[in-house]
Amino acid sequence: MNLQSSPLLTDLYQLTMLQAYFDEGMEDTAVFEFFVRDLPPQRNFLLTAGLEQVLQFLENLRFTPDELDWLAACGRFTRDFVRFLETFRFTGDVHAMPEGTPFFPHQPILRITAPIAQAQLVESRVINLLHFQTLIASKAVRSVLEAPGKLLVDFGLRRAHGAEAGLLAARAAYLAGYSGSATVLAGAQFDVPLYGTMAHSYIQAHADETAAFERFAHSHPTNTVFLIDTYDTEAAAEKVVKLAPRLEQQGIHIKAVRLDSGNLSEHAHKVRHILDQGGCRKIGIFCSGNLDEYAIRQLLADGAPIDGFGVGTLLDTSADAPYLDCAYKLVEYAGQPSRKRSEGKATWPGRKQIYRLHAADGTLERDILTLEHDAHPGAPLIEPFMQAGKRLSAAESLQKTRQRTADEVARLPRHLLQLETSPRPYTVEISPALRNLAEAVDRTAH
Amino acid sequence: MNLQSSPLLTDLYQLTMLQAYFDEGMEDTAVFEFFVRDLPPQRNFLLTAGLEQVLQFLENLRFTPDELDWLAACGRFTRDFVRFLETFRFTGDVHAMPEGTPFFPHQPILRITAPIAQAQLVESRVINLLHFQTLIASKAVRSVLEAPGKLLVDFGLRRAHGAEAGLLAARAAYLAGYSGSATVLAGAQFDVPLYGTMAHSYIQAHADETAAFERFAHSHPTNTVFLIDTYDTEAAAEKVVKLAPRLEQQGIHIKAVRLDSGNLSEHAHKVRHILDQGGCRKIGIFCSGNLDEYAIRQLLADGAPIDGFGVGTLLDTSADAPYLDCAYKLVEYAGQPSRKRSEGKATWPGRKQIYRLHAADGTLERDILTLEHDAHPGAPLIEPFMQAGKRLSAAESLQKTRQRTADEVARLPRHLLQLETSPRPYTVEISPALRNLAEAVDRTAH
Repeated sequence: MNLQSSPLLTDLYQLTMLQAYFDEGMEDTAVFEFFVRDLPPQRNFLLTAGLEQVLQFLENLRFTPDELDWLAACGRFTRDFVRFLETFRFTGDVHAMPEGTPFFPHQPILRITAPIAQAQLVESRVINLLHFQTLIASKAVRSVLEAPGKLLVDFGLRRAHGAEAGLLAARAAYLAGYSGSATVLAGAQFDVPLYGTMAHSYIQAHADETAAFERFAHSHPTNTVFLIDTYDTEAAAEKVVKLAPRLEQQGIHIKAVRLDSGNLSEHAHKVRHILDQGGCRKIGIFCSGNLDEYAIRQLLADGAPIDGFGVGTLLDTSADAPYLDCAYKLVEYAGQPSRKRSEGKATWPGRKQIYRLHAADGTLERDILTLEHDAHPGAPLIEPFMQAGKRLSAAESLQKTRQRTADEVARLPRHLLQLETSPRPYTVEISPALRNLAEAVDRTAH
Repeated sequence: MNLQSSPLLTDLYQLTMLQAYFDEGMEDTAVFEFFVRDLPPQRNFLLTAGLEQVLQFLENLRFTPDELDWLAACGRFTRDFVRFLETFRFTGDVHAMPEGTPFFPHQPILRITAPIAQAQLVESRVINLLHFQTLIASKAVRSVLEAPGKLLVDFGLRRAHGAEAGLLAARAAYLAGYSGSATVLAGAQFDVPLYGTMAHSYIQAHADETAAFERFAHSHPTNTVFLIDTYDTEAAAEKVVKLAPRLEQQGIHIKAVRLDSGNLSEHAHKVRHILDQGGCRKIGIFCSGNLDEYAIRQLLADGAPIDGFGVGTLLDTSADAPYLDCAYKLVEYAGQPSRKRSEGKATWPGRKQIYRLHAADGTLERDILTLEHDAHPGAPLIEPFMQAGKRLSAAESLQKTRQRTADEVARLPRHLLQLETSPRPYTVEISPALRNLAEAVDRTAH
């Protein structure tokens, strides 16, 4: 059972509902939409990400013989139902906002239209995929906005929540504007640029710190970054200054030093001074160690002479907001618009579209949330991506998505770009057509 | 490239260091230990988890032809080094605390002893695996302690950080005492008991709520739990009361109703009253919706008549403490004890053991952190699990680990079992032998 593609990576209730739909002969078209109910604290907008992985999952959805055997043996399902699952495929339509689009609460970023069993079964994994990358892209863009022109590298694999989180956090961070990642598999699978040189253990495993630097330089003459805080940061900077001319004679240019502990601003100032005095003005300073967008802002406000940042745990776990209040909800079944009215969790019914209005200079002005066929001025944000189970076009390169994301983020109004919660949230109007439909649906008895 | 087993799921610096070790002919034995530096706020102890997945990863470690091709083509590594990786296997030893052991800061829970390239390469994934399950088990045990005798089910897959987080959170929560999970793959892979019935969409897809209940009951006569908050919770409870006798006549006993929104305490009281008045005393009440150990404690303190809880997002993301400050550090190379002295991140050198002392009634009293061969009274916590790349015994059943975990947790002193940070942390003594070694290491020049 392949972790990433298994249809058993779902909640049991999806399968018990499918058994019931099967018994009842319910196979009409259902429409589900994914949206976020509220922005978490300290977020003024979110960035869509993860659609590519959702499309791949849907396109390849099938039960393997092993999975069917397990379902047959687990005692919860009828033989006829398990037989029905043998040929189960996703044959529906997908509409969505392209990856890297800024969006706001109650705006659907994905719509799935399919026979109810299909649209239902995929709920858990679709949320799992869209939620995580959207969470990380929305976190990553904040440090991108705080550190223009700086190298930003994702260092978070080790404390990301499992294998896929490490891999996809690297993708989402790059999409949102990071320079790259330390996660090798993200380079191999997504062409994310890779960064990395040495850990403290490399220094420790050598009897002498300078010898460790020199030997590493010989192994990696075009990627020479020295970690200098294993014992005494400034003493190590002096060693770098002494070593530099010897390496230069061999054609090796030290690229940078990395600081990973202590007061980074103080150390960066001191190390910059030592390097400059020693004629090493071209050696950059790269910092890591418990960094996030707040720490980066503070370091840059202090005038710390830092050229790049490695951001790890606090990015890959989105530590200040480790989840989004998101949902995937039935908005139509068998042609009938629907919504739930649970307290505090009521949803808007029907298939929706969003129109985005821009000012003359291209800045976002406001959005209109309305029904699919209720046209408004502005640019519609929801586009078709899959029809009858087939993708409508090949995947865009991640590089291109990243560029498009940067363009979109640049059009956000300034007050949404600050780290703190803006007192003036972005305006999303609910159209009269949508309000009327919600009232009409509520008049239906249950 | 298989996400879970690929050696490319690592940080680039592991591979650049390996190239350098290869060039330098460094192949002596390195010893690394994994530990947590500090408890996060609101944790008085942590529970080890994830060792089983680490052992599987190490036992199966190898580069596939695809991975070798990628490394050869990426331009960072020499041909000889890539050839060396062709036969790369893990041939080292693993010592660890068994899963489900309560532990405290600076206590190594895993030690890897292997040729330096091997012990180094696996760092990122070993941390990734141990950190996450330890994080979740340590979170899950808190609701277990607050809700004795109640059904506790992990509902977190959808907002867990990716596929593996969803799967392994189910395992870690079960290990820590949860009754089971909604995540089907965790049932298929780890025999975690599964729970789940219906979502709001199932109710919405039927024109009539009672009809939805009745049809579901016919499909699942031994697993009839009705979700009753889609429209009006108390009205739905009345419908359940009316439906119950008809189902009883057909031999179907309604097990429970589920509440998922609004003031759960108020609704549970009202629904209990409606069910009892209607002669449905045996129908249980199960609650879900943004729950964690604090919410559960409050509901039970309110006397809310709730028989079980579904705990999702706040468990699977460990939302109040989404990461542990953990590290995997070199403590010895080529027979020489080692430590780094980075500010605020200094580590203890040498191969360690922990002795745990218990009071007469079996309660934990204090631990002694010392060197491997420095015997002390008490029970040693670190045991051998793998020798020369081979497991010393087959994996324990998860059921048995879960029982052992419950026994261990029951022996913790009461003041560590509260949700809030205890003003009296558990005592971990550093032995004179360990202190002396650290001083001796520091006297060595670098």
